[in-house]
Amino acid sequence: MSGREFFRTRTVAEALTQFRPARRTRVETVPLDQALHRVPAAAIRSPSALPGFARSTVDGYAVRAADTFGSSDGLPTYLDLVGEVQMGVAPNVVVSSGTAVAMPTGGPLPAGADAVVMVEHTAATLAATVEVMRPVGPGEGVVRADEDVAAGAELVAAGRPLRPQDLGLLAAAGVTTVAVFARPRVAVLSTGDEVVPAATAALAPGQVRDATASALAGLIAEAGGTPVPHGIVADDAGALEAAMRAALADSDLVVVSAGSSVGARDETAGVVARLGPPGIWCHGLALRPGKPTLLAECSGVVVVGLPGNPLSALVVFRLVGMPLVRLVGGVTASAPAATVPATLALPVPSAAGRLDVVQVRLVDGSAVPLFGHSALLSLLTTADGYLVVPEPATGLDAGAQVSVTVYG
Amino acid sequence: MSGREFFRTRTVAEALTQFRPARRTRVETVPLDQALHRVPAAAIRSPSALPGFARSTVDGYAVRAADTFGSSDGLPTYLDLVGEVQMGVAPNVVVSSGTAVAMPTGGPLPAGADAVVMVEHTAATLAATVEVMRPVGPGEGVVRADEDVAAGAELVAAGRPLRPQDLGLLAAAGVTTVAVFARPRVAVLSTGDEVVPAATAALAPGQVRDATASALAGLIAEAGGTPVPHGIVADDAGALEAAMRAALADSDLVVVSAGSSVGARDETAGVVARLGPPGIWCHGLALRPGKPTLLAECSGVVVVGLPGNPLSALVVFRLVGMPLVRLVGGVTASAPAATVPATLALPVPSAAGRLDVVQVRLVDGSAVPLFGHSALLSLLTTADGYLVVPEPATGLDAGAQVSVTVYG
Repeated sequence: MSGREFFRTRTVAEALTQFRPARRTRVETVPLDQALHRVPAAAIRSPSALPGFARSTVDGYAVRAADTFGSSDGLPTYLDLVGEVQMGVAPNVVVSSGTAVAMPTGGPLPAGADAVVMVEHTAATLAATVEVMRPVGPGEGVVRADEDVAAGAELVAAGRPLRPQDLGLLAAAGVTTVAVFARPRVAVLSTGDEVVPAATAALAPGQVRDATASALAGLIAEAGGTPVPHGIVADDAGALEAAMRAALADSDLVVVSAGSSVGARDETAGVVARLGPPGIWCHGLALRPGKPTLLAECSGVVVVGLPGNPLSALVVFRLVGMPLVRLVGGVTASAPAATVPATLALPVPSAAGRLDVVQVRLVDGSAVPLFGHSALLSLLTTADGYLVVPEPATGLDAGAQVSVTVYG
Repeated sequence: MSGREFFRTRTVAEALTQFRPARRTRVETVPLDQALHRVPAAAIRSPSALPGFARSTVDGYAVRAADTFGSSDGLPTYLDLVGEVQMGVAPNVVVSSGTAVAMPTGGPLPAGADAVVMVEHTAATLAATVEVMRPVGPGEGVVRADEDVAAGAELVAAGRPLRPQDLGLLAAAGVTTVAVFARPRVAVLSTGDEVVPAATAALAPGQVRDATASALAGLIAEAGGTPVPHGIVADDAGALEAAMRAALADSDLVVVSAGSSVGARDETAGVVARLGPPGIWCHGLALRPGKPTLLAECSGVVVVGLPGNPLSALVVFRLVGMPLVRLVGGVTASAPAATVPATLALPVPSAAGRLDVVQVRLVDGSAVPLFGHSALLSLLTTADGYLVVPEPATGLDAGAQVSVTVYG
């Protein structure tokens, strides 16, 4: 059977918002030094306030602010220097009215003091006396004990991949292990009688090496998943079904790049329809390149069927596959989409109702579209990025201002 | 001694264009499935043309284009069906004038044919006869044998980190190992009597955990390096020199985040000045936060001295440290800088002649600046990204259109 008769074509936006499989990976605990880009399974709160003590932000003198009121170059305030704060050690002096204590940047504010006057606003012409030439207000030159983070406040949110600065804040709070979603295991299957492994030294006439599997592995890794190669399956429904059932048993997602022949395309849908409920969600996206895309959920595993052309397969996987890997891996919040603004160098045709993904080179602020058949993988390697012609548009004129999503 | 007296302040642009240490990592060979984001040490050329044979881009019939000229719905051309091409197998038929061969998408074009007519433009009402309703030109429906890549053409460039599609094209060409620059080993040292390891459960008054080292490790990894923790050194010139010499011996770059006290700041420069030629290149960047930055090259190793405040240290390392890691790791070409356009929600002050890096949240197309002391690491974890106020500007007005670099 062919699934194509039974499922209408969906838009990419529908796929991204409405195809929301429930599967999530299990939770595991990793040390902080392996937590970069991992996805916290729950918000992490600070066990205590940070920095945990009132801290000087300048080199200078801890004082009572009120003592400095009215100070000026012409009429300095004279304070008795009664001690010095050492870094990393509890102060053993107290600031009382009329006294000052020498402070290094980052040192703990001694009891009795409520401000730090910068050394640049002082003079020390007399031994054991500090001349203050400028007034300071209470709290000036000081970070409060809970000014960075209050006790119990959220350090990192659930569902947002950890950035370097997040690791820093966790370290500051003494959090050295993190409960994160396990990386999704993503099985990669290629089909097609013509497809042979990349390591094949000499090709027989009509054979092509499996380019899609290697590129998909990279995209899966970029989305936080672990690619699991499941090899190449011949254009045979029985063999494909056996391979897919083996993949399903061991994976969070299964990605199958269809053979490009019409028989292979139909076979994939037929096999997926037999793999378990709820089954095929869509077979066909309003997308070019990438129309013959299949999205399914079979017995709790997400299945993505990709077009046979490597370029089409990679465009589709970037647009709808990577978000699914992230979803299964617990990501609920992503960084805003960054782009490069550019002026379109040539007109780009499109059809209304279809999303077009156009590969471009960026040359001196211009986006130069790369036209060519979607069988040509070199279009993707030549491109600096891509632009999207949205569904309603019938094309873009030369000179249009466009936003290019660049390949990292 | 203090290095500060002897080296003028530089701009970030000067640092990026003029501080160009010669060190590069050695070259190693990695398998393709470990080559994502690695940096090729030399351009890789294709041993042969790709796809390597003329290939159909459609399901249809291989023909001689001239036979179809003048075909129409009303006056179809009748061709004898003389065979069928199988996927992945050399054709065993020849197309002569007046004949056609059935073709699957991706199949090899048989000898004698120069075009493929789409099945949609044919009918097969008579056995062993194909009716062609539309003319095709020579080359139509076909990808040439060298149309994706010519033999000897460059598959990937030297110095540009490999993207997923690059792995795909290498696989297509049968290239399964890649000579890449080794990941730069980047020693991370923290200094400061107040700094204790992140794993310290209970802090004594005045102590802070080492946040910078954990965050730096993340930034180093994002730049393609391997962070090598070298622990925490007390504010003691002898101890620091010993620790730095040990780090130099084993690293491509050494990053030292200074203690924040004035003594610690001076100590670092003094120690670095003794580590070997050519020595300190700059001590002080026209940058806020991040002014007390030191850049040096000592006995062939790149040394980056960072401010003591974690936020300042991370801002500096992102701006000038990560590009140095990439440089040492062989990167010569990077993706264009992608940003998010936004409207500035509040005015941002700056001083002419100084680059200001302002952390922002992105809220409904607005960039909301986060103000606060650079001792507060939570400014960085709250931010979605940052904007830069360039050296000549004296600030930005509310409502200004800005480009926000987002944290990934």
